[in-house]
Amino acid sequence: MINQEMMRLGNHRSVIRDIFEYGNQRAKIVGRENIFDFSLGNPNVPAPPKVTETLERLAKTDPVALHGYTSAQGSEVCRKAMADDLNRRFGTSYRPENFYMTCGAAASLMITLRALVASACDEVIVFAPYFPEYKMWIESCAGAKCVVIPAQIKDFQIDFATLEARMNENTKALLINSPNNPCGVIYSEETILRLSELLEKKSAQYGHPIYLISDEPYREIVFGGEKVRFIAPAYRNTVVCYSFSKSLSMPGERIGYILVPDCVDNAADVYAAVCGAGRSLGYVCAPSMFQAVAAECVGLTSDISIYETNRKLLLDGLRSFGYTCVAPGGAFYLFPRALEADAGAFCERAKQYDLLLVPGDGFGTPGHFRLAYCVQTETITRALPLFKKLAEDYGV
Amino acid sequence: MINQEMMRLGNHRSVIRDIFEYGNQRAKIVGRENIFDFSLGNPNVPAPPKVTETLERLAKTDPVALHGYTSAQGSEVCRKAMADDLNRRFGTSYRPENFYMTCGAAASLMITLRALVASACDEVIVFAPYFPEYKMWIESCAGAKCVVIPAQIKDFQIDFATLEARMNENTKALLINSPNNPCGVIYSEETILRLSELLEKKSAQYGHPIYLISDEPYREIVFGGEKVRFIAPAYRNTVVCYSFSKSLSMPGERIGYILVPDCVDNAADVYAAVCGAGRSLGYVCAPSMFQAVAAECVGLTSDISIYETNRKLLLDGLRSFGYTCVAPGGAFYLFPRALEADAGAFCERAKQYDLLLVPGDGFGTPGHFRLAYCVQTETITRALPLFKKLAEDYGV
Repeated sequence: MINQEMMRLGNHRSVIRDIFEYGNQRAKIVGRENIFDFSLGNPNVPAPPKVTETLERLAKTDPVALHGYTSAQGSEVCRKAMADDLNRRFGTSYRPENFYMTCGAAASLMITLRALVASACDEVIVFAPYFPEYKMWIESCAGAKCVVIPAQIKDFQIDFATLEARMNENTKALLINSPNNPCGVIYSEETILRLSELLEKKSAQYGHPIYLISDEPYREIVFGGEKVRFIAPAYRNTVVCYSFSKSLSMPGERIGYILVPDCVDNAADVYAAVCGAGRSLGYVCAPSMFQAVAAECVGLTSDISIYETNRKLLLDGLRSFGYTCVAPGGAFYLFPRALEADAGAFCERAKQYDLLLVPGDGFGTPGHFRLAYCVQTETITRALPLFKKLAEDYGV
Repeated sequence: MINQEMMRLGNHRSVIRDIFEYGNQRAKIVGRENIFDFSLGNPNVPAPPKVTETLERLAKTDPVALHGYTSAQGSEVCRKAMADDLNRRFGTSYRPENFYMTCGAAASLMITLRALVASACDEVIVFAPYFPEYKMWIESCAGAKCVVIPAQIKDFQIDFATLEARMNENTKALLINSPNNPCGVIYSEETILRLSELLEKKSAQYGHPIYLISDEPYREIVFGGEKVRFIAPAYRNTVVCYSFSKSLSMPGERIGYILVPDCVDNAADVYAAVCGAGRSLGYVCAPSMFQAVAAECVGLTSDISIYETNRKLLLDGLRSFGYTCVAPGGAFYLFPRALEADAGAFCERAKQYDLLLVPGDGFGTPGHFRLAYCVQTETITRALPLFKKLAEDYGV
């Protein structure tokens, strides 16, 4: 009698959340310090001090203005700060009117998908490995078909032959995520240019724009001299979905934005559809106080040197124990191959050492597992001998 | 090519927002102090001091814990505080597991509607006058049919004869809002009991539960010894949608909850569907810091004596000038009859005096207009002579 699909979604938590909850239960038995929880992308590096300072200062200001509704698209001050930040860093010329503030990355994506998807025939392409909720959002809420391009295992760049073969007149959008969750890989300059060329060609061929939805919560978390290319200028029909969850270490506060550049075909219509989709989904406005925080702290990041230390420790350690792993250029995830074909069985076996890992199957990439290393460095140094034992168990 | 319905929703702002934006533009010309903006339910009474104190104190705590993800249903501490508050005030025995924290009232309603509505044949009944977005949420996002019961103009209680006539086997839920936006009326004890009896009878007749969705953002804003009956215990299949926007004067912060009591038929399934709907709509969790604020400040209200003063001034004044108005028991709205049949034309005419009023048509009740009196009392004392002139223009 009630909505069975919603009930199923509620009863079957995401695999990641399941493992996270298992860790919470297990911590009660063996102690939090003995759980090596690499399951959740919940940053363990504090927000920049300026976030705290800004909160304290704002709290002393007029509460009516501070906590009141903003316009549905976000306060003018906040949207101007978003534009200024990107313009300064990337030489763009965005205006406040290009931005729509949201309740975080999930909201950014849901609103964008709902704005763009017009019929059940529409297809949205995602690239494995991909964030598991993508498929659910595309199918369950936006009502489109989700087309998965299998992973190019050797480097996690795009398998263009397969991509081109899977595109057709119903292709409405591609959803990309670089730096990537779960593998940390950044799309190369070559990948982005080739993608842009292909999308221009196919848009012309099919006679309608193919949108590139760029999910960029890890844009600022980049290591070792890697330069993250800002994707929007490379392809004109790009809609950017951003979140401050990871860059400012405040994932619980639900603040992000959608950027619809002027160069998008029928940009005013797309922006209006974004506003309409936000309204239709019950997003009245993004949280007011954190709009003000984001306006002041945009461009800052948490101390990502901690992630860089963690990444090196883990990558070097795992490789020395015989694990195979593509080196990630950003985010805070590793996505090594599991030591047996069934990554689920591998992750179960890892639990014997209280190593909490997420099988790659949910990310559309069996035979791999995800490690979220946004943890204390000490957690990694103490976990490494356990990864070694685990490899030895497999005779590696 | 993009979603035309979303574009239409984005281009056609709600009437209320339109008038609010008109006021902002007009204020630039004649000065903010000369605009008598009664359009928006944006409380002009500050949040209780404890909200500010709590924010300042929380800002000094561990940012990783403060700003991190909570469970999708909300932190245990917060949900326990919600249960304790209702149990203390209403003698109920709710548990934290009955609560799902949300990003405000709109999110509470959207998630509940999406959890309950299972097919396009499902009907959700609303009672005029109703909040204009109800119809859009029911139709556009939940995908059900919205059935409107016309207003019982004399007292804005329920027209039971019409309600009973409009119910049928497809009736999935009734959506009520007491104290009411836009008329401020509180459902009487008699109305609630009669409604409960009717719903029990009809649920038995149709062989399935009819849910009562009780939208209660104004539950704590009640005047002059009126007692607001907590509706959930009166009818077992009630799902409560709450928001702190109005009670704590923080509408921009997007924090509220859904309560699914144990006595709801298949309560565990309904709760699971609520979790699934939240996930499907991209609501990852309610804002973390304001979950903590809500946990500490639940049960408090802003200084509602200001609203009570405003209400008396306006109601007495308008009546003395010849306006007809049902006396509201709560919220911060008046819903008088317009002085001509076309409320839109009446509100246009009021603009000559910079009185910004909202026509009742969008609330499903033509011939009336809404006044949101959550403004400075001085705004009302200065506006009253203008209302008098307006009545005189009509020869009243």
